[in-house]
Amino acid sequence: MSRVAVDMLGGDGAPEVVADALALLNASEGSESIDLLLVGPVNVVGELLIDRGIAVDRWPTVDAQGAVLMDGDPLALRSQTSLSAAVAACAVRDGLADAWVSAGHTGASVAAGVLHLGRMTGMSRPALAVVLPATHGPVVLVDAGASLEATSQVLLEFALAGWCYARALDIEFPHVGLLSIGSEPGKGDALRSQTDHLLRTQLPDFGIAYSGTVEGQDVSDGRRAQVIVTDGFTGNVVLKAIEGAVSWTAMHLAQAYQDSGPARQLVRQTLTSDFAGGMLLGVNGVSVVGHGASRPAEIAACIKLAARVADHDIVAHTQSVFTLMAARP
Amino acid sequence: MSRVAVDMLGGDGAPEVVADALALLNASEGSESIDLLLVGPVNVVGELLIDRGIAVDRWPTVDAQGAVLMDGDPLALRSQTSLSAAVAACAVRDGLADAWVSAGHTGASVAAGVLHLGRMTGMSRPALAVVLPATHGPVVLVDAGASLEATSQVLLEFALAGWCYARALDIEFPHVGLLSIGSEPGKGDALRSQTDHLLRTQLPDFGIAYSGTVEGQDVSDGRRAQVIVTDGFTGNVVLKAIEGAVSWTAMHLAQAYQDSGPARQLVRQTLTSDFAGGMLLGVNGVSVVGHGASRPAEIAACIKLAARVADHDIVAHTQSVFTLMAARP
Repeated sequence: MSRVAVDMLGGDGAPEVVADALALLNASEGSESIDLLLVGPVNVVGELLIDRGIAVDRWPTVDAQGAVLMDGDPLALRSQTSLSAAVAACAVRDGLADAWVSAGHTGASVAAGVLHLGRMTGMSRPALAVVLPATHGPVVLVDAGASLEATSQVLLEFALAGWCYARALDIEFPHVGLLSIGSEPGKGDALRSQTDHLLRTQLPDFGIAYSGTVEGQDVSDGRRAQVIVTDGFTGNVVLKAIEGAVSWTAMHLAQAYQDSGPARQLVRQTLTSDFAGGMLLGVNGVSVVGHGASRPAEIAACIKLAARVADHDIVAHTQSVFTLMAARP
Repeated sequence: MSRVAVDMLGGDGAPEVVADALALLNASEGSESIDLLLVGPVNVVGELLIDRGIAVDRWPTVDAQGAVLMDGDPLALRSQTSLSAAVAACAVRDGLADAWVSAGHTGASVAAGVLHLGRMTGMSRPALAVVLPATHGPVVLVDAGASLEATSQVLLEFALAGWCYARALDIEFPHVGLLSIGSEPGKGDALRSQTDHLLRTQLPDFGIAYSGTVEGQDVSDGRRAQVIVTDGFTGNVVLKAIEGAVSWTAMHLAQAYQDSGPARQLVRQTLTSDFAGGMLLGVNGVSVVGHGASRPAEIAACIKLAARVADHDIVAHTQSVFTLMAARP
């Protein structure tokens, strides 16, 4: 069973909200197998555990004092290796943990992952992959906001890393699609047109099925592709637009049915699914980034996602795909 | 009351689906004030009207023989001015109608509008504006797919034209927002960063309130901005992603509530609202483009939208804003 390092200071409601997540995990079925490494101020963490009826020695704690503020500069990480996100990433680098989770400043978490774990050979930029629930099963959207500008080569790398992630999530034969504005070959702006050609010629060599260009509605449909690739700008806007549309629809229907129960439950279920955490792809270690506004159940979902993916040894698998890419003529 | 030219051959189910839309309008309250100019093969249109119990002389018909097929080349319009979309656009140019509507090939309709009505002075590219229902009232998303690549200057033009459209829809004091990945000034990729600066310095000179950068969820929220500006690639992807997310949520909740009625009704209401038609901005005439898959009620909604907006003399208002822009130092 994999050990997950948890940034106790990451999140708008940290450290309390993270401690509440630990209490949820501790009370859940099979909790004895959950192996964590807590990262935060030792005294504070100890008190938070005691307050929630968790034994202080239930999980080891590594001392770390500060978090990057939401409006802070993520590059502060370079000089401040005692920051909790940096310490959590270093715990993975140093073999003390198999994965790390933070719901702190997203830019700082991405920076901590890239800086302390290092980018994989062959991956020129990091990407955040988010798992969306769709009609025909989960869809991995990559990049959801780590790298705003992309080239065709970068999108090919995102496709490969996203495909490895989908496999680690037990999606058996994930098809890759390129997010665009129509399904005809080459349809889209100049970047999509070029990238469609590149993916069409390259992905089959890796044994990866390519569905061609897909459209916005395919993200919530999941039939044509289970890995949908785009630049981080488009991915972030689309992800948030979908969140907004789900809320709008749920709110309207709660009123129309005169019962908010099932609508609330759908939103809660979604938030506490694998959707809770963005997986940082292209770094040498499993790194899960939660929303800053995460609630305890969402942080608990991030921790479970990190443990599950670490069990699949996704980093080694992704590295071997990139090695294969580098070795090609 | 404005007269609307209707492309009888536009739409996957044309001409029958368009004739069914006419029957809906003819049977609706206040139908006597609806003034149309039908554009299509005269004999066929006559038979369709008779089949639906509409007097053949209820509305005049202008003869036009062909439509651009969904996989056809929109530039075919250049040589084939007898194509129905082209004839409808020309009817507006020649003063026979005040607006035109087509649910045919979107690219062909955009091309017909630009070619036969001409681009407005000051508007370097056309844009499609779509009205989305949002929690705090309607939101105009511009561009939804007419111009895939944009510059800051183009996005400024979209902001001005979109603002004029929002006013024509009776949104009293529309605020403009720039679609990006965060709300801090300049947040986003290089294009958004530049454009945010340009809109911030230019829009106040036109008496237009600028809300800064907004995020994907703001499209379905509508509190921060009622006109949301983006390039046609992002706008099209976001629009379809929202459509997909609304369907996904409605389908799930229909199951959860064990009653599909209200969920279906919400989707139907949305489809037959102003959302039904994209308004082609930046051309010298009111041009409404429906989905190819439109059903009769959606085409009827497009026709009503066209008539309402033509009553507001939106073209003259937009032209005066662009004249003001051109006159600035």
